Amino acid sequence: MVETALANSRLIDAAIQEAEALLGDRLSTSRSVRDLHGESVAWFANHPPDAVAFVHTTQEVSELVKICARHKVPIIPYGAGTSLEGHTSAIHGGITFDFTQMNNIIRVSAEDLDCTVEAGVTRIQLNQYLRDMGVFFPIDPGADASIGGMAATRASGTNAVRYGTMRENVLNLTVVMADGTIVKTARRARKSSAGYDLTRLIVGSEGTLGIITEVTLKLHAIPEAISAGVCPFPDIKAACDATIMAIQMGIPVARIELFDDAQIAACNAYSDLDFPETAILFLEFHGTEQSVAEQMALFADIVAELGGGPFDTATKTEDRNRLWKARHDVYWATLAMRPGCKGLATDVCVPISRLADCVEETRADIEEFNLYAPIVGHVGDGNFHLILLIDPKDPEEKLRVDELLKRLVMRALAMEGTCTGEHGVGMGKMKFLEAEHGQGLGVMRAIKKALDPDSILNPGKVVAM
Amino acid sequence: MVETALANSRLIDAAIQEAEALLGDRLSTSRSVRDLHGESVAWFANHPPDAVAFVHTTQEVSELVKICARHKVPIIPYGAGTSLEGHTSAIHGGITFDFTQMNNIIRVSAEDLDCTVEAGVTRIQLNQYLRDMGVFFPIDPGADASIGGMAATRASGTNAVRYGTMRENVLNLTVVMADGTIVKTARRARKSSAGYDLTRLIVGSEGTLGIITEVTLKLHAIPEAISAGVCPFPDIKAACDATIMAIQMGIPVARIELFDDAQIAACNAYSDLDFPETAILFLEFHGTEQSVAEQMALFADIVAELGGGPFDTATKTEDRNRLWKARHDVYWATLAMRPGCKGLATDVCVPISRLADCVEETRADIEEFNLYAPIVGHVGDGNFHLILLIDPKDPEEKLRVDELLKRLVMRALAMEGTCTGEHGVGMGKMKFLEAEHGQGLGVMRAIKKALDPDSILNPGKVVAM
Repeated sequence: MVETALANSRLIDAAIQEAEALLGDRLSTSRSVRDLHGESVAWFANHPPDAVAFVHTTQEVSELVKICARHKVPIIPYGAGTSLEGHTSAIHGGITFDFTQMNNIIRVSAEDLDCTVEAGVTRIQLNQYLRDMGVFFPIDPGADASIGGMAATRASGTNAVRYGTMRENVLNLTVVMADGTIVKTARRARKSSAGYDLTRLIVGSEGTLGIITEVTLKLHAIPEAISAGVCPFPDIKAACDATIMAIQMGIPVARIELFDDAQIAACNAYSDLDFPETAILFLEFHGTEQSVAEQMALFADIVAELGGGPFDTATKTEDRNRLWKARHDVYWATLAMRPGCKGLATDVCVPISRLADCVEETRADIEEFNLYAPIVGHVGDGNFHLILLIDPKDPEEKLRVDELLKRLVMRALAMEGTCTGEHGVGMGKMKFLEAEHGQGLGVMRAIKKALDPDSILNPGKVVAM
Repeated sequence: MVETALANSRLIDAAIQEAEALLGDRLSTSRSVRDLHGESVAWFANHPPDAVAFVHTTQEVSELVKICARHKVPIIPYGAGTSLEGHTSAIHGGITFDFTQMNNIIRVSAEDLDCTVEAGVTRIQLNQYLRDMGVFFPIDPGADASIGGMAATRASGTNAVRYGTMRENVLNLTVVMADGTIVKTARRARKSSAGYDLTRLIVGSEGTLGIITEVTLKLHAIPEAISAGVCPFPDIKAACDATIMAIQMGIPVARIELFDDAQIAACNAYSDLDFPETAILFLEFHGTEQSVAEQMALFADIVAELGGGPFDTATKTEDRNRLWKARHDVYWATLAMRPGCKGLATDVCVPISRLADCVEETRADIEEFNLYAPIVGHVGDGNFHLILLIDPKDPEEKLRVDELLKRLVMRALAMEGTCTGEHGVGMGKMKFLEAEHGQGLGVMRAIKKALDPDSILNPGKVVAM
């Protein structure tokens, strides 16, 4: 018998037995497999499930859900395990549905600029597959997350400012509901007014309303030209103002990323760069050769007006890749600054006019609390991240971090922002949902209760039922 | 006592009495006011409500909903009355909430490119207000619809291909739920992963899950340059192929509208134009002067490749306005072709690769059924409209129309499309929802039941509860 937190162990055993009959050796109860799935990138204790099911088809997921429903056993969907707020922790035990082996690319239409993939396909796998078709999938949260997980957490990343988030880029989903019913949330049409938007309801629901098994995604034409640029500014405010001006002028910037001086120092050290240690924007422009040149010229005017610069551009692919590799490595660069410490990445998102204030006040907090927390942000969306380094041997430091995080979220909410722009709620942000949504949380709970009355789908996450 | 269809007349009388105490003479039971609100642009019988409430504030709407909830009286939200599928018909009697007097523009932020308006503000009113601020609200369904109504039906229109639909352009909503609770569906942040997407759940729910009282919208920078163009093609297929190529090349076309020969003939006659009577695209390009010129040159190459042309461009505002006025007048132009007939406008939406087939097969149907139905389409989205003219004195013609509509929808569904791209479900498309959504309809009904257990919110629409 395997141990379990809250679920009835007799029922779990019965469910595991039936699941084993269905999956054979793709149902694992080994300690190491369970521990691996109970682990998280984030600052949460390991909560292993009672078993891990390596699923292969939607039909199989449906049958497995019916087994779990019959025995009221928790189900935890698991993609690439890159989530940051404890989304995949089996806090009430149960069976983790691992999608890594369900990773076929089902169809691609370059004409319709869309494709359908199984939930376990990762974004890098997809883009490698698409490479020669003239199209790409733009959403890039940094980690090589699974498409199913990205849909479940409403992920976005560096180029959401131009291409949108998973909210805008999922056309439809195949979802297994809490009773095992298989639902297609929408058709392949680019738009529809035919009933409630089940696609958007499931996107961002973090496995608590249904289990995503297939995803139809919008694709985008690979631009003829791509150029990158780096530009220092006297301060955060000037960098934010430059972003606002660029967007107000309608410059269709594809990426615009803010680094504070602490983050740049970490990147310089880690990636062997020598940027000035001040507020810096990394940018990318997509379009025709002519349009990209024009966008860069317009941005150069803004830089001059705001006293920034020099605005260095990188049109060569290798220079661009070096730049964005440094951006993607910020987490590791930050960790390297205080060896032995654990990282805690968090994010908030505010209206862009409030971004500079929100970042500056947060930097003052970091100083006041005597913490180390570089800042990097998807500044075009008003979204920024703190990477906090915490000494595991200093429990008092974690208390200061918790207080800082609370102040960060409350500040973002006071500025009409949100407690998370792209990381999701999981367990980490649950405590802030009432402050953010007020009565809306009651509506969310009513929906959860209607669609998962026994609360078997990723219980204890998001709306805490 | 006022007459009512299904609702209990004693309860309705009690609700009206309480509503009158709250609103005074802004609660009307006059026959003419009720008839006006029971009328629809579409092919539906007049179903007047028992009373019409001219609401002024969210708080008032909440109190009024509580009255209706107590007496289980149907509530029908009403914006500008431009909906096409019978959304505002009071088929079960009840109280219509008229938002025309709740039309304040609450706030505008040019920096954040957003604004908040009361539900009764119309899109033209909003754009006139924004005119000198360098920003605009792009969604343009043709009619001067209310913003609340546009959100409720997930409206889009001619430039959705570039700017998206109401799904993408609503940041948050203030909604009064079935028990009178006031909910803000989200914050002003451009993106969020904080819980279920209540905004997208309410957008497109047509007043059946909650009553929209305020809307926060994304705005867009007014482009430096706008140019229009008109281009004939040998046939529908070539026009659709040109559209697909333009989108695949990443030309950020702002509008791309297809007219078939019948529609062009009607427009020529009505708007005193002399376009060749063949498949024609109307286009609009937004950007900098240089970018617009480049976009038009790229499109000209496509035209040449596909044997279309001449591609006439119109950079002067008055020429552009004349063009788009003709586009907006298609309904009246079509009506003028058979005086005495009534119009029935319908729409479907398919993946763009199937659009030419879908349009051509539908044209064959129109001929086979001996009907008159010009076609106009938002071809960049795969969305097209039929405007059917029906002789009210010929009941047999209406039967042929119904059969044609059924074949149209079934064809769109077989092509992985949707029964409506932007008109909504209302009463007219309800019968197709099961064919479109299968088990998803059950999920929609579970949500409806959870959020409106007594079915007082626009009953008998969308999910038919």
